[in-house]
Amino acid sequence: MDTRTGLPVVGMVGGGQLARMTHQAAIALGQSLRVLAVSPEDGAALVAADVQIGRHDDLAALREFAKGCDVVTFDHEHVPGELIRALAAEGHTLLPGADALQYAQNKRLMREHLGAKGFPMPRWTAGDAKAFGDEVGWPIIVKTATGGYDGRGVFVADSPADIPDGVEIVAEELVPLRRELAAVVARSPLGQVAAYPIVETVQENGICVEVLAPAPGLDEDLAVQAQRLAIDIATGLGVVGVLAVELFETTDGRLLINELAMRPHNSAHWTIEGARTSQFEQHLRAVLDYPMGDTRLTAPAVVMANVLGGEPGGMSIDERLHHLFAEEPGAKVHLYGKQVRPGRKIGHVTVLGDDMDDCRRRARRAAQILEEGYQH
Amino acid sequence: MDTRTGLPVVGMVGGGQLARMTHQAAIALGQSLRVLAVSPEDGAALVAADVQIGRHDDLAALREFAKGCDVVTFDHEHVPGELIRALAAEGHTLLPGADALQYAQNKRLMREHLGAKGFPMPRWTAGDAKAFGDEVGWPIIVKTATGGYDGRGVFVADSPADIPDGVEIVAEELVPLRRELAAVVARSPLGQVAAYPIVETVQENGICVEVLAPAPGLDEDLAVQAQRLAIDIATGLGVVGVLAVELFETTDGRLLINELAMRPHNSAHWTIEGARTSQFEQHLRAVLDYPMGDTRLTAPAVVMANVLGGEPGGMSIDERLHHLFAEEPGAKVHLYGKQVRPGRKIGHVTVLGDDMDDCRRRARRAAQILEEGYQH
Repeated sequence: MDTRTGLPVVGMVGGGQLARMTHQAAIALGQSLRVLAVSPEDGAALVAADVQIGRHDDLAALREFAKGCDVVTFDHEHVPGELIRALAAEGHTLLPGADALQYAQNKRLMREHLGAKGFPMPRWTAGDAKAFGDEVGWPIIVKTATGGYDGRGVFVADSPADIPDGVEIVAEELVPLRRELAAVVARSPLGQVAAYPIVETVQENGICVEVLAPAPGLDEDLAVQAQRLAIDIATGLGVVGVLAVELFETTDGRLLINELAMRPHNSAHWTIEGARTSQFEQHLRAVLDYPMGDTRLTAPAVVMANVLGGEPGGMSIDERLHHLFAEEPGAKVHLYGKQVRPGRKIGHVTVLGDDMDDCRRRARRAAQILEEGYQH
Repeated sequence: MDTRTGLPVVGMVGGGQLARMTHQAAIALGQSLRVLAVSPEDGAALVAADVQIGRHDDLAALREFAKGCDVVTFDHEHVPGELIRALAAEGHTLLPGADALQYAQNKRLMREHLGAKGFPMPRWTAGDAKAFGDEVGWPIIVKTATGGYDGRGVFVADSPADIPDGVEIVAEELVPLRRELAAVVARSPLGQVAAYPIVETVQENGICVEVLAPAPGLDEDLAVQAQRLAIDIATGLGVVGVLAVELFETTDGRLLINELAMRPHNSAHWTIEGARTSQFEQHLRAVLDYPMGDTRLTAPAVVMANVLGGEPGGMSIDERLHHLFAEEPGAKVHLYGKQVRPGRKIGHVTVLGDDMDDCRRRARRAAQILEEGYQH
């Protein structure tokens, strides 16, 4: 407990933008998020009062960090399960726990487990990818079983020659897609689950560039089915905190599970302004064992556009903000305090309104001004 | 400039809840607010990464703080004008400037200046309060000219015996009130002014306990007149940042100016969730010279209720949060990290909805749970 405030202390391992935005939400709850960052220049380390510098795969650093935390949670999936188990065995509370988190850390485990439970997913194999490709037809999707994120560790294999050696992979059939969706829920230790409206996630080159909330024109039955699926997974795996289930909507109207994340997720950044309770507050409420918050939309249409780093040079980010705010006074900007590198997510923009197409146009334009500077 | 982010550095003098909530808003803009706090246990000092400890009336501390800030702004009105002028003369940018801020610091100066410009206000005097009371009729309102806040330094004098000696005061006629209103605007250095909808502020024992946005049943002409008045004051005084104009609506339907504040203000805390741009973001945008943000409401009815510290003992604040969130999943809580003292503002709660009376009931109930613990 923080004796200054009388409130429990939440620690987050990892100092990226998720921890940065969780700290923002923590402030309202009377909290000050404790952050374990790799570098003092990590996005969350720039803004949080209570920062320790250390690696997420260093047991001594984690142990030191967990001291004085009432609960430890995660900004990413890269803390090795055995370290989480070691700390739990020493009496620390880590949420989500290693038993749940393993399914977000290992794509093979997730597929084996959810497949055995009958959850729908594309045909896949952890075995002979070349034989699998010959069977289901090339091209196929190949993913490293662990360590990938933001499209890294995922590629399309056109032929057996594209299958890598010496790394644990899962191979998956290429599914005829209508689009990608995400079902985001949060679950408390008591088992209360709150579900956000289903969103559409728009990808370019394997990176999410836009999220549309609610998913436009989504069949009501399919929306309920998607929420149900995420609730069942959260409950079945005993997740505590936010669970994002990335989904495929196939051209023949089925839902298939793509990937899981057990932390605040890019597909729900829109909730900061677009839902009554943001995913960051919801994650904190879950790990603090508070009742979940209202997940309703605050506007008929909400669009989030990611801001990717552009080529170096040109207008400063400060000048870009001037132009953006002049053009879109209602665009909500979130910058992550990151050095700009081409293709790196450096922030996002959210636009709310009555018309999805209009919000989309405005959000894309706002993101573009931040990415490229102002051009008529 | 912060070389890590390429963005200008904003410093705020004072480490209270306004700085705390401004830091929250700063994070989204890629900023990390620099805070000058009196104590490391001040609300903002508990959550900001970049905190200096020092007094707001100590020139050396202010000078050290201003170094490396691109702009310095204020969490309160207690920085002496001569210190602001001294720093400005040394080349620092302080917003609002001393010329504007003096009218929020000194109630006599404000009345002289705005009165001379023809702005409407109750009859008042800085001269002989006893003679004034005899003239306008007792009781009258007496205010210390400087240093008051949150109802401190303001009282009702029933007779000449109640008039204090040896302190600079202004005396004011007691106006027949329908209610109190607030007009909040923000102005950029370029002169762009953005106005929030006019709100009703509900007072108990001289302390604001609730804010209703928009002010229920307010005549449209009067609302426009109130906005106009605040815009004219902001422009006339050259305010940069948020300006709150506290107003009386008289029983005969006139608007009279009560007080000014030149900083984010309690009467606009509802904007965090209730407006497209919060007053804290708006204040930052103003002092950073960014174009102002959209001030529209996000729901038809928004109510903010202040949370005052109750008697010591009873349920912990953590337990109270459990009960509150169970009863009102949509209530937005803001705790300021303060030690609880009876009557001290320790946070606020905002409720959004379609019906003002319903929002009011829910906001009061939520605040009450935090103040008193859960009682059926």
